[in-house]
Amino acid sequence: MDHRSAALQFAEKNKASFLASLEQVLKIQSISTDPEHEKDIRSAAEWVAEKIKSMGMLNVQIFDTARHPIVFGEWKVSDEKPTVLVYGHYDVQPVDPLDLWNHPPFEPTIIGENLYSRGASDMKGQVIAAISAVESLVRTGELPVNVKWIIEGEEEIGSPNLVEFLSSHKELLACDFSLNTDSGMLGKDAPSISYALRGLAYFELKVFGPSTDLHSGIFGGVIQNPANALAELIAGMHDEHGHITLPGFYDSVIKLNETDRAEMARLPLDTTHYIDQTGVPALFGEEGFSPVEQAGSRPTLDINGLLSGFTGEGSKTIIPAWAMAKISMRLVPDQDPDLVHQQLSSYLETHAPQGIRWELKPLAGGKASISSRDSKYVLALKDALKSAWGIEPFFKREGGSVPVVTYMQDILGVDSVLTGFGLPDDNLHAPNEKLNLPTWYKGINALIHFFMNLAN
Amino acid sequence: MDHRSAALQFAEKNKASFLASLEQVLKIQSISTDPEHEKDIRSAAEWVAEKIKSMGMLNVQIFDTARHPIVFGEWKVSDEKPTVLVYGHYDVQPVDPLDLWNHPPFEPTIIGENLYSRGASDMKGQVIAAISAVESLVRTGELPVNVKWIIEGEEEIGSPNLVEFLSSHKELLACDFSLNTDSGMLGKDAPSISYALRGLAYFELKVFGPSTDLHSGIFGGVIQNPANALAELIAGMHDEHGHITLPGFYDSVIKLNETDRAEMARLPLDTTHYIDQTGVPALFGEEGFSPVEQAGSRPTLDINGLLSGFTGEGSKTIIPAWAMAKISMRLVPDQDPDLVHQQLSSYLETHAPQGIRWELKPLAGGKASISSRDSKYVLALKDALKSAWGIEPFFKREGGSVPVVTYMQDILGVDSVLTGFGLPDDNLHAPNEKLNLPTWYKGINALIHFFMNLAN
Repeated sequence: MDHRSAALQFAEKNKASFLASLEQVLKIQSISTDPEHEKDIRSAAEWVAEKIKSMGMLNVQIFDTARHPIVFGEWKVSDEKPTVLVYGHYDVQPVDPLDLWNHPPFEPTIIGENLYSRGASDMKGQVIAAISAVESLVRTGELPVNVKWIIEGEEEIGSPNLVEFLSSHKELLACDFSLNTDSGMLGKDAPSISYALRGLAYFELKVFGPSTDLHSGIFGGVIQNPANALAELIAGMHDEHGHITLPGFYDSVIKLNETDRAEMARLPLDTTHYIDQTGVPALFGEEGFSPVEQAGSRPTLDINGLLSGFTGEGSKTIIPAWAMAKISMRLVPDQDPDLVHQQLSSYLETHAPQGIRWELKPLAGGKASISSRDSKYVLALKDALKSAWGIEPFFKREGGSVPVVTYMQDILGVDSVLTGFGLPDDNLHAPNEKLNLPTWYKGINALIHFFMNLAN
Repeated sequence: MDHRSAALQFAEKNKASFLASLEQVLKIQSISTDPEHEKDIRSAAEWVAEKIKSMGMLNVQIFDTARHPIVFGEWKVSDEKPTVLVYGHYDVQPVDPLDLWNHPPFEPTIIGENLYSRGASDMKGQVIAAISAVESLVRTGELPVNVKWIIEGEEEIGSPNLVEFLSSHKELLACDFSLNTDSGMLGKDAPSISYALRGLAYFELKVFGPSTDLHSGIFGGVIQNPANALAELIAGMHDEHGHITLPGFYDSVIKLNETDRAEMARLPLDTTHYIDQTGVPALFGEEGFSPVEQAGSRPTLDINGLLSGFTGEGSKTIIPAWAMAKISMRLVPDQDPDLVHQQLSSYLETHAPQGIRWELKPLAGGKASISSRDSKYVLALKDALKSAWGIEPFFKREGGSVPVVTYMQDILGVDSVLTGFGLPDDNLHAPNEKLNLPTWYKGINALIHFFMNLAN
């Protein structure tokens, strides 16, 4: 029997043991945002380190950070083989409102084919899937690739210490690419790979009018109202076709080609899907693009917040002294957040009415990222998912950004391959989080195939 | 010597005594909004009642209301004479920030020709001016008109009990018109009469998008952002000439005639004045109208408040579930607030984009009011001001509304004649409130002339 078949057989025979491991780690209440769970966080890190070590890995370390520890592990086979850096996190979201859970969140409970527990899908289940795949391979032969692990404990609080850790451990973490299983599937029969992430340019725009709030009776009609002026500036940022009007905004946007559009057309993300997910009466987006294209591959401009004048109950007749908007753009390759900043400034210089002044403060920015769908790592994953599910996997573009992917790119200089075995209805960050076990077992198989494919 | 000359001579001789009375009442800390000053409020009411009684008035009463008392007084001369209802208030604004006062606010201090104290201008000074004028007349002959007083203690908190009082004392308060001296002058040498007030239509508009705040990465581009949609709706409410676009909005607006415009052109309210008062870099208003016309005689639409999504420090990448605006229109004759409500609804029905829903809540409304500049009461006041200052008084339109004027009109069925002897730099509602004494003495003379003129 070849190594691949033996590993798959091992996995088939050890389903109960994999599940028992998962249930063990799910019982640890590793809520990263809550200082009361600091001990649990430490326990979870130690549990993960011990688990990796138990497969026979020699170099396993727990690195302390300013807050929660990072687990590192390494199994080196040969300099000839590619090195995969497997990223994951052992921390979980808080559980409130607790009364909406049908079972205690840290007492894993199986109902039908689902396992209910906080962290089951996001992402202890995904971490244990990767560990189980590697275990299946090391128990049945020589690991076909070099594997490094980086399992952090701060993902749910924004990974505040990850940049510092990556920067100061570049050599230790040196690899060919990163596998990130924190991205989900589109459905039970829709294995998927995320190959593009949108970037971000986030601003605070403040429009100033009179030196203090004024009586709208005495001065209404004579001066520019900064709230009205802000509304006009915002309204002018889109034309009637949903295009963004900032000068030069689309100049560096890479056009979708036929293959891109065909790939996106395959995705089971139609109008009904988006309406169900958002609760809006009807969709609305840039003319000439399908919803999935609008959400994944086109730049957008959204108001994230508005504040001006009197916002309490009832009425107060003032002309506010100022009005503020949080404005962010999702960017696509090859847009540059700094250039977008200039474009927005230039738009404001042209369109700001007389009688006000404005201030624009950049708050966050990051470029979009895109990987080739034809790289050998992506192809290895594509084939692996196809082997496990028997269907062509879907290629997704994520509308948001995944900070760790950007960090890996910027600091370690490596691309990430994003996949995962969570489902859209897994209740991530919500009560009754669950993991679909048949999907999870298929995921372990897929990862066995993936590691084997990489060696070829 | 005729009565007029005798009264003016009495006033001239008794300046010190009038000032002493004013200083007495200014020492009473009658801050209506502060429950700690309830006793002071009562003292002020009693002081005013006693003062009116001391002139020889027989029917003087203090009426309790749900909060602060109202002082009523009556001196009836003859059924043949017109009856003037003199309106005033004895309550004052709070004094904080106390450290910005150069002298204690309740220790009246004379510096040069000004008297500094809370309430000196707004409006204990104005009440004592009217009392002093009547006193000058009753001490030197028979009062030329019937005089009634209504001096309330809740003006600075919005006169919450005035409607109830007026409604339940219609017979007691029956009169030919009301004299309201709570309106100021345009400058030391610019005595003025306010003959028009703008009305109001105030709304809260809420635009709803997704059922909860959404991740702007995942859903940005696919759905209508309610904050963007609100901005577009607001922006569309004005055209590029500063005209309001609500359907039918100007249909019932009475056009300014030549006399109106000539009268307004006389007012010392030029561009520099409005820039100084507001601190804006440049004025901005409806095309085709001067600033004073824009502020007094044209309807306006102002955003009074905006709220949506994330408004804290830093960035949060959400598409907000809703966005809210407080929107108010200042109305002019013959606009109707209910009709304006319909016009706004109709505008929203036509222009609201797909993918959102909206709710419009009317919060306040009142019609504009305008008096003839040729009524005998207005002409009596005009001649009186001219006698005291030696120049033609200015006719002003107030941009705001004065609730008590509306109440008198609606409940008692009488017009108000608005004037007063406060100056634009009197620091009303602010630290170092003051009264210009030479102007105040002229004001007493003007009111003596006014009451005499009414008898002719």
